[in-house]
Amino acid sequence: MTMFDTTTPAAPVVPSHGRLRPLGLDEVRITGGFWGERQAVNASGTLPHIESRLESEGWLPNFDLAAAGTLPAGRRGREFADSEIYKFLEALAWEIGRTDAAGDSELEQRFRRVVDRVAAAQEPDGYLSTMFGREGQGERWSALQWGHELYCLGHLFQAAVARVRTRPDADDGLIDVARRAADLVCREFGADGRDAICGHAEVEVGLAELGRALGEQRYIDQAALFVDRHGRGTLGEIEFGREYFQDDVSVRDAEALRGHAVRANYLSSAAADVATELADESLLDALRSQWDRTVERRTYVTGGQGSHHQDEAFGDDWELPPDRAYSETCAGIGSIMFSWRLLLATGEAQYADLIERTLFNVVATSPGDDGRSFFYANTLHQRTPGVPADPDATSPRASSSLRAPWFEVSCCPPNVARTFASLAAYVATADDDGVQLHQYAPSSVRTTLPDGRVVAFDVETGYPADGDVRITIAADAEFTLSLRVPSWASGAAVRVHSGGEVTESDAPAGAVAVTRVFRGGDTVELSLPIVARATAPHPMVDAVRGSVVIERGPEVLALESIDFGADVGEAVVAGEPVERDGRVVIPLRRRSSGETVDASLIAYHDWARRGPSTMRVWIPMN
Amino acid sequence: MTMFDTTTPAAPVVPSHGRLRPLGLDEVRITGGFWGERQAVNASGTLPHIESRLESEGWLPNFDLAAAGTLPAGRRGREFADSEIYKFLEALAWEIGRTDAAGDSELEQRFRRVVDRVAAAQEPDGYLSTMFGREGQGERWSALQWGHELYCLGHLFQAAVARVRTRPDADDGLIDVARRAADLVCREFGADGRDAICGHAEVEVGLAELGRALGEQRYIDQAALFVDRHGRGTLGEIEFGREYFQDDVSVRDAEALRGHAVRANYLSSAAADVATELADESLLDALRSQWDRTVERRTYVTGGQGSHHQDEAFGDDWELPPDRAYSETCAGIGSIMFSWRLLLATGEAQYADLIERTLFNVVATSPGDDGRSFFYANTLHQRTPGVPADPDATSPRASSSLRAPWFEVSCCPPNVARTFASLAAYVATADDDGVQLHQYAPSSVRTTLPDGRVVAFDVETGYPADGDVRITIAADAEFTLSLRVPSWASGAAVRVHSGGEVTESDAPAGAVAVTRVFRGGDTVELSLPIVARATAPHPMVDAVRGSVVIERGPEVLALESIDFGADVGEAVVAGEPVERDGRVVIPLRRRSSGETVDASLIAYHDWARRGPSTMRVWIPMN
Repeated sequence: MTMFDTTTPAAPVVPSHGRLRPLGLDEVRITGGFWGERQAVNASGTLPHIESRLESEGWLPNFDLAAAGTLPAGRRGREFADSEIYKFLEALAWEIGRTDAAGDSELEQRFRRVVDRVAAAQEPDGYLSTMFGREGQGERWSALQWGHELYCLGHLFQAAVARVRTRPDADDGLIDVARRAADLVCREFGADGRDAICGHAEVEVGLAELGRALGEQRYIDQAALFVDRHGRGTLGEIEFGREYFQDDVSVRDAEALRGHAVRANYLSSAAADVATELADESLLDALRSQWDRTVERRTYVTGGQGSHHQDEAFGDDWELPPDRAYSETCAGIGSIMFSWRLLLATGEAQYADLIERTLFNVVATSPGDDGRSFFYANTLHQRTPGVPADPDATSPRASSSLRAPWFEVSCCPPNVARTFASLAAYVATADDDGVQLHQYAPSSVRTTLPDGRVVAFDVETGYPADGDVRITIAADAEFTLSLRVPSWASGAAVRVHSGGEVTESDAPAGAVAVTRVFRGGDTVELSLPIVARATAPHPMVDAVRGSVVIERGPEVLALESIDFGADVGEAVVAGEPVERDGRVVIPLRRRSSGETVDASLIAYHDWARRGPSTMRVWIPMN
Repeated sequence: MTMFDTTTPAAPVVPSHGRLRPLGLDEVRITGGFWGERQAVNASGTLPHIESRLESEGWLPNFDLAAAGTLPAGRRGREFADSEIYKFLEALAWEIGRTDAAGDSELEQRFRRVVDRVAAAQEPDGYLSTMFGREGQGERWSALQWGHELYCLGHLFQAAVARVRTRPDADDGLIDVARRAADLVCREFGADGRDAICGHAEVEVGLAELGRALGEQRYIDQAALFVDRHGRGTLGEIEFGREYFQDDVSVRDAEALRGHAVRANYLSSAAADVATELADESLLDALRSQWDRTVERRTYVTGGQGSHHQDEAFGDDWELPPDRAYSETCAGIGSIMFSWRLLLATGEAQYADLIERTLFNVVATSPGDDGRSFFYANTLHQRTPGVPADPDATSPRASSSLRAPWFEVSCCPPNVARTFASLAAYVATADDDGVQLHQYAPSSVRTTLPDGRVVAFDVETGYPADGDVRITIAADAEFTLSLRVPSWASGAAVRVHSGGEVTESDAPAGAVAVTRVFRGGDTVELSLPIVARATAPHPMVDAVRGSVVIERGPEVLALESIDFGADVGEAVVAGEPVERDGRVVIPLRRRSSGETVDASLIAYHDWARRGPSTMRVWIPMN
């Protein structure tokens, strides 16, 4: 294990040790391509859209009412509305870091204006909530089951982490706000305090990272306390069962992620942080084993998690119906958070594989082209054409059948925003010997190894449209460049042009390492075979037996009725998928007429961008 | 169409005209067998259990508080708790009729004691609710979307119908209570009154039948008004969409049942009543067409309806996942109510077929052996062993994985009780020419045709264990005996022994009619081939593609882990089902080990009676 300087990288997760060291937004920049476009739309579309909605929905003005002492009159939004402001602040902080915005930039000014309003609402002892603690409201900490009081603070802490990691010297005051709130949480819920947890995990992961960022072991210990208190039934019974908030068995004893899929992933992420910081190998092993079973048995082919609409929860093992797959966008983001921590701890490529699958097929699916509408849930089979959402309206949670501009429970839009703004942090890592490239995007990487060697290279690629990744070294250095080879990429190869020599080798799934005394201008070319392939389901997954899904590289493909000329319920596979004019085409029989047609498939993340349609990912073989 | 005397038959549904005339509990008696046993347990177990729970949960005492003028303090239960008392009264009334209990019997005294407490809570103008209308409560009719105020009154009306049909001269006062409440509803919601409906259909079907029972056309007209007001959005928007309470499109324009499955069936039942009473053929045609599509595309092989836990609702066409099939017991009962009305109107055997399927596989599945625990939802695939319910506890709605004694929403137990107590009414009907036997059970039938001919016969059968049904004529008369031949019974035959002659003929699916001058002692023997058969799913039902269900006669069979020696997720069909020693045995391969074992299948309604297990109805072919 390598010990790191924990304060440096401008990244969301910076463990004090682990197999891999994260790189910050100042070390890795995405310069274009699939993700670069999404980052641009996130900046131009999503962030202003969220800010406008937080204002017009009254969720940000709630803080003004708190400061004015007039709450609860006029408070708007659900019990967790505060958290959306914090996620927005986190997204802005990463965006400032990503674009290296100046102190007098418009971004900075927007950030500071929101921080001022939040800070004004904080009470002298550090308490901060627009929902509790005043006359006419519930008492502080009186509604831990559903109140989301600590959950909101967890997001405040993550916002502060983003700020301190990107602008450590900023004088806006957010860090102090977070510190005062975290101190209060430690006083109230410490070992001698209330023996209680929040019904929605999040404060744990926020506290752990704030502790890392500020060098406050107390916060990490408090996170560990909260993690350990799960599974003792202190939250009481609810209709969905105690597994809903992971209060049924301890984090150590659980066999798989279960219950509410966002809660489960946030808690698992925090548990991974705690396991790392406390060097608790048995906890880490338990989490890895839970991840294995969850990915094998409780995860959709898209990477989506959560089979149930009713409780937004994981189903039983193998219960993965494509109809009404819930696959909440936020659960996908939570899964990335959890996998990322295990990747940093272990260096194993499987975690980066799932992150890629989830990024392309869940997170990229959510936002509309202009970044101003979103899927909350991500079904794998739409049986009736979706109904366009009113662009001025607020949709109930997951009921919109096409992307909607905002939700009563609007966790997903700011969650997407903070993920896209910080996405470069998930592209590459470093260790003592070199750099590991986990995700392929046009990008530039500049970092310094512990012994002072400077690693600098640029990545060019059309990924995932094509699988050629060309890395050009920008500075002389001896180091190991490790390239992830996705599990689907059988037949991959790597070619190194170095000092006039060309070396070729196979690149089996996992990772391929190239160690060289690299010279500026050397190139490493990874060729990933990106062709359409038919994937059969695991035989234990009853709901898609006798069907196949067509995948292409990291992308799951989908059939949309608009490309089939009939409802997708009519489709039966009648041959192999082929690539034709840059499209994947598959012969499909129409069940009623018996007629066979060649239909184009689209990337799943591109569905419902051309108006109402029916859509399916799994296509029957008969 | 025959015009009937609408006041006579002691039956839940007595249309003024139609293809078939219902027979009352005094005309048809179930004398033993499968359903006779369940009626006995209903009387000895379920009715006392319900009464005790209504008392201990405080739902019946709510009426005492109302009478004492102390509400809302101390009121217990959900907004629809009153309705359970009315369903219990309805069940008791049918039980009194079924057993011909004397006026001084214990059953009668129990009935009257409850009626007294209900009557004492009624307000002078006829209003009756423990939930609304007092200081500290919501105003009358102020919460139609979720308040269930009119819904409760609908059940009051059905209780009164049961009473007036079984004890028309009783002086307990329930009829007057119902009449005063119905008059109030007509004043408040008549053509010149509030243009509104209740969020849960039921008042419509209650009003229509009360109108029939009391000869009050006003009540039928009010039912018609409520039916017609559906689909105009007066209930407003909710997260589940307006189809949840069938307020999305008009009853006439709908293409299938949709939304909440109990609401949908209750409304459709009322619409069928209205169509019949107002001779509205186009409405009847619309309902028949909706029934067709619902049964083809939105109904489980068990007859169960409702695919979603979240909103207890129908899914889209072909969306029938066996995992977490909701298939609420009450939706099955509602489906029987709807089908029965269409059967009376048209005489078509398909409606009786669905009733039989639903009775054996949904309604019979709900109660435990002692009639004191119940399934609320009826999944077709249990992936993890159920957890036994605490016999003293009250379970959240459908979350119990084994039968539970009571629920916070406890609609199902009293719904089962009223259905079993009145079950004989669904066995046979009459027309001008004779009697139609729709359901096979040991029973005796005694009725008089319009022209005075007395039809009397007794039915002996071991159905559904075997398919031999022997009808022995008890009185000389010329009439037509029509016997339903279920759609699955290919190869059925009928043999008539009459006046020393024996006549045999094939009995194709639908119905076989035997017209004779019958003499006492003549017999008609129907042989239904009851053998295990493998049924493939409709190819459009994705969730069970590549699987089969084994059926035997009207019963759907299930595989329980206890008979397989392994989790049912491991099972793959490896041969044909055979009957051996009175059991259906099927060779099954265990997926992990490859080993093949002969496993007994049980009737689905018998599952979870031997402790926790996993269970599935659809078994994969590979």
